[in-house]
Amino acid sequence: MNRLKDLWASGRPALNGWCSIGSPFTAEIMAAQGYDSLSIDWQHGALDYSDLLPMLQAIRASGVTPMVRVPWLDPTSVMKALDAGAMGIICPMISTRQQAEDFVSYMRYPPQGQRSYGPTRAGFAMPGYGVGMNDHVLALAMIETKEGVENLEEIAATPGLDGLYVGPADLTLGTQDGRLPPGFDREEPEMTTLIRRIATACKANGIRACLHCGTPDYAAKAIGWGYDLTTVSGDTRLLAGAAKASVDAFRALTKRGD
Amino acid sequence: MNRLKDLWASGRPALNGWCSIGSPFTAEIMAAQGYDSLSIDWQHGALDYSDLLPMLQAIRASGVTPMVRVPWLDPTSVMKALDAGAMGIICPMISTRQQAEDFVSYMRYPPQGQRSYGPTRAGFAMPGYGVGMNDHVLALAMIETKEGVENLEEIAATPGLDGLYVGPADLTLGTQDGRLPPGFDREEPEMTTLIRRIATACKANGIRACLHCGTPDYAAKAIGWGYDLTTVSGDTRLLAGAAKASVDAFRALTKRGD
Amino acid sequence: MNRLKDLWASGRPALNGWCSIGSPFTAEIMAAQGYDSLSIDWQHGALDYSDLLPMLQAIRASGVTPMVRVPWLDPTSVMKALDAGAMGIICPMISTRQQAEDFVSYMRYPPQGQRSYGPTRAGFAMPGYGVGMNDHVLALAMIETKEGVENLEEIAATPGLDGLYVGPADLTLGTQDGRLPPGFDREEPEMTTLIRRIATACKANGIRACLHCGTPDYAAKAIGWGYDLTTVSGDTRLLAGAAKASVDAFRALTKRGD
Amino acid sequence: MNRLKDLWASGRPALNGWCSIGSPFTAEIMAAQGYDSLSIDWQHGALDYSDLLPMLQAIRASGVTPMVRVPWLDPTSVMKALDAGAMGIICPMISTRQQAEDFVSYMRYPPQGQRSYGPTRAGFAMPGYGVGMNDHVLALAMIETKEGVENLEEIAATPGLDGLYVGPADLTLGTQDGRLPPGFDREEPEMTTLIRRIATACKANGIRACLHCGTPDYAAKAIGWGYDLTTVSGDTRLLAGAAKASVDAFRALTKRGD
Amino acid sequence: MNRLKDLWASGRPALNGWCSIGSPFTAEIMAAQGYDSLSIDWQHGALDYSDLLPMLQAIRASGVTPMVRVPWLDPTSVMKALDAGAMGIICPMISTRQQAEDFVSYMRYPPQGQRSYGPTRAGFAMPGYGVGMNDHVLALAMIETKEGVENLEEIAATPGLDGLYVGPADLTLGTQDGRLPPGFDREEPEMTTLIRRIATACKANGIRACLHCGTPDYAAKAIGWGYDLTTVSGDTRLLAGAAKASVDAFRALTKRGD
Amino acid sequence: MNRLKDLWASGRPALNGWCSIGSPFTAEIMAAQGYDSLSIDWQHGALDYSDLLPMLQAIRASGVTPMVRVPWLDPTSVMKALDAGAMGIICPMISTRQQAEDFVSYMRYPPQGQRSYGPTRAGFAMPGYGVGMNDHVLALAMIETKEGVENLEEIAATPGLDGLYVGPADLTLGTQDGRLPPGFDREEPEMTTLIRRIATACKANGIRACLHCGTPDYAAKAIGWGYDLTTVSGDTRLLAGAAKASVDAFRALTKRGD
Repeated sequence: MNRLKDLWASGRPALNGWCSIGSPFTAEIMAAQGYDSLSIDWQHGALDYSDLLPMLQAIRASGVTPMVRVPWLDPTSVMKALDAGAMGIICPMISTRQQAEDFVSYMRYPPQGQRSYGPTRAGFAMPGYGVGMNDHVLALAMIETKEGVENLEEIAATPGLDGLYVGPADLTLGTQDGRLPPGFDREEPEMTTLIRRIATACKANGIRACLHCGTPDYAAKAIGWGYDLTTVSGDTRLLAGAAKASVDAFRALTKRGD
Repeated sequence: MNRLKDLWASGRPALNGWCSIGSPFTAEIMAAQGYDSLSIDWQHGALDYSDLLPMLQAIRASGVTPMVRVPWLDPTSVMKALDAGAMGIICPMISTRQQAEDFVSYMRYPPQGQRSYGPTRAGFAMPGYGVGMNDHVLALAMIETKEGVENLEEIAATPGLDGLYVGPADLTLGTQDGRLPPGFDREEPEMTTLIRRIATACKANGIRACLHCGTPDYAAKAIGWGYDLTTVSGDTRLLAGAAKASVDAFRALTKRGD
Repeated sequence: MNRLKDLWASGRPALNGWCSIGSPFTAEIMAAQGYDSLSIDWQHGALDYSDLLPMLQAIRASGVTPMVRVPWLDPTSVMKALDAGAMGIICPMISTRQQAEDFVSYMRYPPQGQRSYGPTRAGFAMPGYGVGMNDHVLALAMIETKEGVENLEEIAATPGLDGLYVGPADLTLGTQDGRLPPGFDREEPEMTTLIRRIATACKANGIRACLHCGTPDYAAKAIGWGYDLTTVSGDTRLLAGAAKASVDAFRALTKRGD
Repeated sequence: MNRLKDLWASGRPALNGWCSIGSPFTAEIMAAQGYDSLSIDWQHGALDYSDLLPMLQAIRASGVTPMVRVPWLDPTSVMKALDAGAMGIICPMISTRQQAEDFVSYMRYPPQGQRSYGPTRAGFAMPGYGVGMNDHVLALAMIETKEGVENLEEIAATPGLDGLYVGPADLTLGTQDGRLPPGFDREEPEMTTLIRRIATACKANGIRACLHCGTPDYAAKAIGWGYDLTTVSGDTRLLAGAAKASVDAFRALTKRGD
Repeated sequence: MNRLKDLWASGRPALNGWCSIGSPFTAEIMAAQGYDSLSIDWQHGALDYSDLLPMLQAIRASGVTPMVRVPWLDPTSVMKALDAGAMGIICPMISTRQQAEDFVSYMRYPPQGQRSYGPTRAGFAMPGYGVGMNDHVLALAMIETKEGVENLEEIAATPGLDGLYVGPADLTLGTQDGRLPPGFDREEPEMTTLIRRIATACKANGIRACLHCGTPDYAAKAIGWGYDLTTVSGDTRLLAGAAKASVDAFRALTKRGD
Repeated sequence: MNRLKDLWASGRPALNGWCSIGSPFTAEIMAAQGYDSLSIDWQHGALDYSDLLPMLQAIRASGVTPMVRVPWLDPTSVMKALDAGAMGIICPMISTRQQAEDFVSYMRYPPQGQRSYGPTRAGFAMPGYGVGMNDHVLALAMIETKEGVENLEEIAATPGLDGLYVGPADLTLGTQDGRLPPGFDREEPEMTTLIRRIATACKANGIRACLHCGTPDYAAKAIGWGYDLTTVSGDTRLLAGAAKASVDAFRALTKRGD
């Protein structure tokens, strides 16, 4: 039902892809590149539900686990993403235990939670979809605010939460009082200490640690720190980076100076 | 202005159709089949506002009363659905009197409520649209949580509320502690008692009782219980059911066994 | 690669579904009902390429063979449908041998034909997609004009053609000089004779006979006549029929006379 | 069935609106302003079939006669526009009698023409839609090339043609060898003579004369010349003109000089 | 970076255009008419995020400052509009100081606020986009409720707020207890007093006063009252008004009485 | 007006980017990477006119010259692409002088050609757009069939043609009788001879030679052969390649063997 759960059960780390372009075709391309899961970014991605739905349809055939980062903690986006077929939800800006509990409650049908019943598209895409899905959809809370860090252990202990997901850009902005610029792949000791501390809190609570990275090198390092899932870059940066490299190579080879 | 109000004023029950497919063409097809009203399901339907708007446009010519089930109790979805031309709003998961009052307030212009003025599309589709619409748009609150049942009478007595709408799947999940699976057309005595009790609460408060059903038979039974409006099935189930029946008939006739 | 070819190779008839609604969600629903292939009607369906592409993506996971009826004999629509991932093309209004040859040439890469190379989406959806697909995509020509009937045998003998597809509505209009109304499931002797004659021409040339039908009963009869594939109804009629039957049942049960 | 035919039968001229913006909402706005017919410009409008369909749906409720200018003389666009519900087709660049005959043949079901049967959306929007529509849909051929002018009388005499539609911009470019710039509302004697000659050819053949105009004044003059329908401006020019006038008025009033 | 800030710095008033049609083409047309800024109305406009994004892209080349009115005070819509490239946010229905502070916090990256980092489209459209944008994006709070008026001075003094935006229709409904109908360009003394009082509160707090108007005349008057920005009408009214005037002129000239 | 013409006039080669993904956001990303022109592939790209229009709008601000490869030689696609704002058209599969002449005629207003007047979107995006654009829009004919090669010199001499564009995949399939697989960056002597011969034919006729390449290295080599413009790869390959490389690097670093 969920490739990530299977991987983790067998002790293996997972690689997550990231979709910020609102196109089912780019989603289908990304789904063919070997990721274990693919997350559609409804928060910062240039897309909304009208893109999300055909993207989830286009990903389905690949067998890659589809996840969605919702724009904020609210029942509408969590439930609509699940009804559309997401097998995991990444919720940004979880700062308190109460928020983490609300988040989990939106993902589970009663009596465990308060998810409303009606898996319209998910029911056609996944025959047998029902209340039993409570056990299969992943709830991943993002730790990225000062308050979230202060409440880290309490949040990590939330019943029903499957993991924490670290967004280094916001985590840096949120905790360093403007001293450091946003960005991935932090090397500052105060940041690596914090990032490792989050992994430790996950282990202590038997949940998964996930990290957003910019490069395979940093991701591999994070796996070494005990992270269970890393995201490496994303569609917009991959496309822009490859195109820029191609243009630069051509310009260098043709020595046109302008 | 509103066919449902006219029907009810003349003592007749209404039949509501249900649209979960985000397509103006399926909406136009459904609107041609004889329903009194047609509800677009923004909550569990595989659609969002970008589908809702052309669907409301495609329904307009039929004269069927257009309604929208919003994804959750929030001012944005209620007001955007009304501005797009909905003549009734079905709001899920109303659990307290305060929530019911908030819901009603989102639907009425001041001083009755707090709806913001700007019926952009509705104004072109319904000449003369103005603050007087306060009296024509229907506010239907869904009773489907344990807390909602506990506060049933208080909710039913909310000034300005036009009716209660029962979602049997969530109502079962919400009140039976996991003993019963979700689904429509409940036959368990505890459920039929509850469903009839909601109709009674409506009558006692002079508002309308509405029920989501799976079959015409159950709907007719509910009309007998005093329900004023029943929804019978919906576009996805009707399409899938008819296609499946057609495939099965062909397979049986051609005796291909695989 | 192509479920239809496998079925036919094993001597079994195929059941084709029909999509006239431009929605990836209705396509995904249809693909889950047990059809062997699913054809998207770009000709008379209320859809165009912008719908076709996400529909093909939504169908992919089901394993059902995707086909497209193009709007007319022209290289653009045939090639764009193939590049989008169609595994079969149904081309309307083939009236002459030359048209049949042109049609086949649009479907095959040189030197067999003149298809231009660039299977952009097909290449991602079907790893290994290349010139070898010449042998896997089905070319089905529609016989439905008076001239097409006159040239039947010549057309059926076109090298590279995989089958003939009969559209009874146009065939009736085209051949009966206005004496008979359009429609499927013809029972008039002149029409059944003609429809059977087309199957005979297919057999004589070692190609497949396909028929558009309105009911499983007629389709089963056609299988008995030697047809290899039948389409039974389609999404719009299935949805409208099921909705209408549901409304009528409710009206009858609630005895409202209006 | 067709307001234009009724108007003409009663001896009254018709006013046609023009939609070049691909939006069902602008179409719905335009349809509420009092035009007799509304034409969606698939040729030069910034839109294609995917816009046309919801625009026709949005126009339906108004009762205004919907027409479509197709991009070129080809069976696909004519037939798809009709299947989508157009009650009239304006075909650009008709230069010969053969082209006019082809155009008419695409619009009529056999035996009168070669239109393929399958009015998918039109059938739901207009109950009873069938071969009888041959008598209700309008075929309007555009005269706007040098060759078209040379063959004017022959074209006007095409059996089944309902009228000629004059596009003054192309007519000027096509006949004046670059001496005059394109534009509507021509005042040059050679152009007014030509425009009046086209109306005369229509009268002589018992068909309707239609003219694309930029202002109500010119349109009224054309009605005086015997034109049966005039288009006055269009959505893009009306919007841009009104916005520009509003900006200019504000600038003048606030005397900001930049 | 922001034409409005530059204009205001030089002591000049600004003219804002208003987009309620969900079309990148109408947005591009509006952007070419000479406005200083263009606001896309996500609240009452017939559009959502899926329209907003291509509209912002279509406006970009014009150099007009793009703004978005969000549907309600919530972090999702404010942050998604900014990430899509809006340089100003107009937030409706601000009634308390706390709401104003929340609004401002959604617009600024930490430590000033709580905006989450990820300017996906904005980063490509505006090279160098980063935390420094805190100083360039405009936060404009709408004063239009009774409570908002009561808390006017407190709201106007909110740190980080750039201005107040007055919506006269809601302001009238919200403060006059149903005595006056909604509408722009108020002439009643109680309304003009109130509207001028809001401008005064802005001046006292060093922020900008903005007013939604229906005509250039009223806008010029408001500039005289000290308003810094006025919106004059909007795309739907401009289009409908121009089309209606054109139809009326034709009818008058052709003297058709129906 | 046209950056390509300026570059060529100054003796510099141009680098063209390629868009096969139907998304205005990927187009905007590509337009920011330093290409001189950007071509939207309406032929093999997974897109149609409904994508093309917002893509051209999204590209506009960058100043990169927008071009469109049309799906086939037909007046509709050439003229609609121009009206949407394309400054160059690449037409596939030109095999004869007559086809080249037809192509050129579709791109020029009379008396030079037969383009119909109505630059609806182009007129708003490029103030002053008129018949003078005849001199600014580029007509590039693709040489990629056996017959096209046979008629190379005749085609290259077509009056009004601006250049030839070589598609090596089709050129290989079309001329080598199935001996060689399709693909870019040909190294076989028979292919390089042919590719160089096309450049020579361009020089001899004073028109531009353009080549579709897979890598900057090959493109630089082609520039050395006298090519004036090279396309290097395209959005789908760049994205897929970068994602695959990222996944492979992660797998290698984390040594997960599956």
